[in-house]
Amino acid sequence: MNQEFKPVEFAEIEAARDRLDDESVVKHTPVERSTSLDELTGGEIHLKMEHLQWTGSFKTRGAYNKIAQCADDGEPGRVVAASAGNHAQGVALAATKLGVDATIVMPKGAPQAKVDATRSYGADVELVGDDFRGAMRHARGLVDDETTFVHAYDDPAIVAGQGTLGLEMYEDVPDADTVVVPIGGGGLIAGIATAYAERSPDARIVGVQAAGAATVPESLQKGDPVSLESVNTIADGIATGGISELTFSLIEEHVDEVVTVTDGEIARAILLLLERAKQVVEGAGAASVAAIISDELDVADETVLALLGGGNLDMTMLQTVLVHALSDREQLLRLRVRIDDRPGKMEEISGIIAGHNANIQTVRHDRSAPELDVGEAHLVFEIETSGAGQARAIIRSIRDHGYEVRHVNA
Amino acid sequence: MNQEFKPVEFAEIEAARDRLDDESVVKHTPVERSTSLDELTGGEIHLKMEHLQWTGSFKTRGAYNKIAQCADDGEPGRVVAASAGNHAQGVALAATKLGVDATIVMPKGAPQAKVDATRSYGADVELVGDDFRGAMRHARGLVDDETTFVHAYDDPAIVAGQGTLGLEMYEDVPDADTVVVPIGGGGLIAGIATAYAERSPDARIVGVQAAGAATVPESLQKGDPVSLESVNTIADGIATGGISELTFSLIEEHVDEVVTVTDGEIARAILLLLERAKQVVEGAGAASVAAIISDELDVADETVLALLGGGNLDMTMLQTVLVHALSDREQLLRLRVRIDDRPGKMEEISGIIAGHNANIQTVRHDRSAPELDVGEAHLVFEIETSGAGQARAIIRSIRDHGYEVRHVNA
Repeated sequence: MNQEFKPVEFAEIEAARDRLDDESVVKHTPVERSTSLDELTGGEIHLKMEHLQWTGSFKTRGAYNKIAQCADDGEPGRVVAASAGNHAQGVALAATKLGVDATIVMPKGAPQAKVDATRSYGADVELVGDDFRGAMRHARGLVDDETTFVHAYDDPAIVAGQGTLGLEMYEDVPDADTVVVPIGGGGLIAGIATAYAERSPDARIVGVQAAGAATVPESLQKGDPVSLESVNTIADGIATGGISELTFSLIEEHVDEVVTVTDGEIARAILLLLERAKQVVEGAGAASVAAIISDELDVADETVLALLGGGNLDMTMLQTVLVHALSDREQLLRLRVRIDDRPGKMEEISGIIAGHNANIQTVRHDRSAPELDVGEAHLVFEIETSGAGQARAIIRSIRDHGYEVRHVNA
Repeated sequence: MNQEFKPVEFAEIEAARDRLDDESVVKHTPVERSTSLDELTGGEIHLKMEHLQWTGSFKTRGAYNKIAQCADDGEPGRVVAASAGNHAQGVALAATKLGVDATIVMPKGAPQAKVDATRSYGADVELVGDDFRGAMRHARGLVDDETTFVHAYDDPAIVAGQGTLGLEMYEDVPDADTVVVPIGGGGLIAGIATAYAERSPDARIVGVQAAGAATVPESLQKGDPVSLESVNTIADGIATGGISELTFSLIEEHVDEVVTVTDGEIARAILLLLERAKQVVEGAGAASVAAIISDELDVADETVLALLGGGNLDMTMLQTVLVHALSDREQLLRLRVRIDDRPGKMEEISGIIAGHNANIQTVRHDRSAPELDVGEAHLVFEIETSGAGQARAIIRSIRDHGYEVRHVNA
């Protein structure tokens, strides 16, 4: 574990910025304030909207810097990468902009939307391997004298490219006390922290990991990067299973604190950003907000700059987050009503619900529950309500009509 | 229908802008480019992100201008309004900022989230009436010597306040050929069009109505505002059932074209904005994008500024839009498989689906369909897939195992 590696110098980040000076490759993303988050945290919260970057994430920065450097060095005109996510799109766009052919290897189960997006940026996509490791193995096998492999984080050129985001963040909110950045493989925070070490050394740099994929706290404790055999989080963009020697050394040197957040906290942050900030942010991108609304990180009375790093939230995942959130708030209510299984019961109970102006989504009969007597049944309603108040009123009304009613989990 | 009314002068919009010169009341919202929309339309599309305004919509502009004017005129310190939507929050915030008491009447079925938001801005909320008309009647009854009614659009001060958004849009994208603005009661487009008539008279101003609530095309034809008894659209923010004499006269004078969009087109626009622009925009706010991606409005080779006017999309509505979209793309697939009703069948077919890496959300037995023989059943699976390609492969595999399988609507 004591390989030689070249640390990333601030000058390399500045050089990367010069290379990236083209609005059609990387744009300067906006910063928005959120009064809702101010109220929840007691701090002054600024959101860096890097999920509005071309390709929907910061990944193009590193990829473009890497490929441009290869091209400057006269290296051959073809790159290969393995990714099921944002790195795929970043490499695809960067290569196309630089006139370099790109092959992206994605695992066979990759969402069609991500495959389509990567192709739309001009890359060849090969679907190989049952999981990311299989795709990675195949991609490594494609490397030859003509072909450079572009790693998602374990590369000084990638780290320096991501570091340009740190320069931008510092310029956007120069007086930030705390800067909050998600950690997957560590390339992003390594670059940003290196930039801040030069520009604003007193700012507190906080890294955030998903609890189901957290390797950095233990790595810092041991003084060496540890990896996980398996990871489990809805924040697939930071579910890497480990950081590299390179990113570990920069995190150890420049990052002040690393906290972890649960999937529940991440889902709550996604919902908060949807409802209040009107932003679609993926799990990995919302981890920074999850941290500041959790008990893990106190930012009261501070000026905080939280990075939203990616917006490529799968619509299926969005639906899952929504269903949980609506059930939690009883805007989606599942009620089980015990009835005598005779004509007219459905009509009567539907009428009670309609009387509250609530909308029935589905209803079904269930005659098989063991607690039912012969001739009895359950009616199971899924109802849209205006919230917990209306939900309670509906339950009360059904009960007042003499029925046994239970709120069951949606 | 020939009441006297005072038309809105450009100078009143400039005066409104001076009144609104406070970032904590109204902020200058950003403009973003969308290459996805460029590709779909052949134009250069700029999105004015007014859904990021405080309270999530433009409504604070008009409300603040109105209430500030009343205060300047020495009118008494209390206002009342009726609204189930964005106007409620706009009036609440504006009144609080001006130190004026506000009572907002909302119909009894109003979503709890909107009631809570309106209260959180400092207004008293009264829940009265089964629908908007009932709430309106009650609100009108609260007016007295001490209390001013704040209408959502039929007021020159409201129109002038919304017009400040036109000034901002012109400054953001001075060379826009076409400006696209949704129409509900017409206050917004009346103000914006009045601003453009002065600042950029050659710009084409296009209004957009939801097909289920479209009154303006017919009004323009007849030369008088017509109203609808009932409206039907997912874009509740522009489902007003009619415009006023005041807004009609300004639309007639300054708006070049009015188009209508269907709810399907609006839903598609909401989804496109979610997936590509990473923005949560409500139906009324997405109508402008619906128009430019529909056949109703050709913007090829033009510089276009489309207004996203509101972001208060109900999470229940968002879920509905998502389910339809995912079904359309076969990312949510409902399959009905005919089986002999014997142990082991569910396991076998589940195994086939799992072999494709697709996730089963729900499964149920149905033994009651008339086409089934005794001893047969249907298994109905809801499956998450990566897209249409995987969906077709799953259906083929089940068929290859000798089963009759049908894709049924989710």
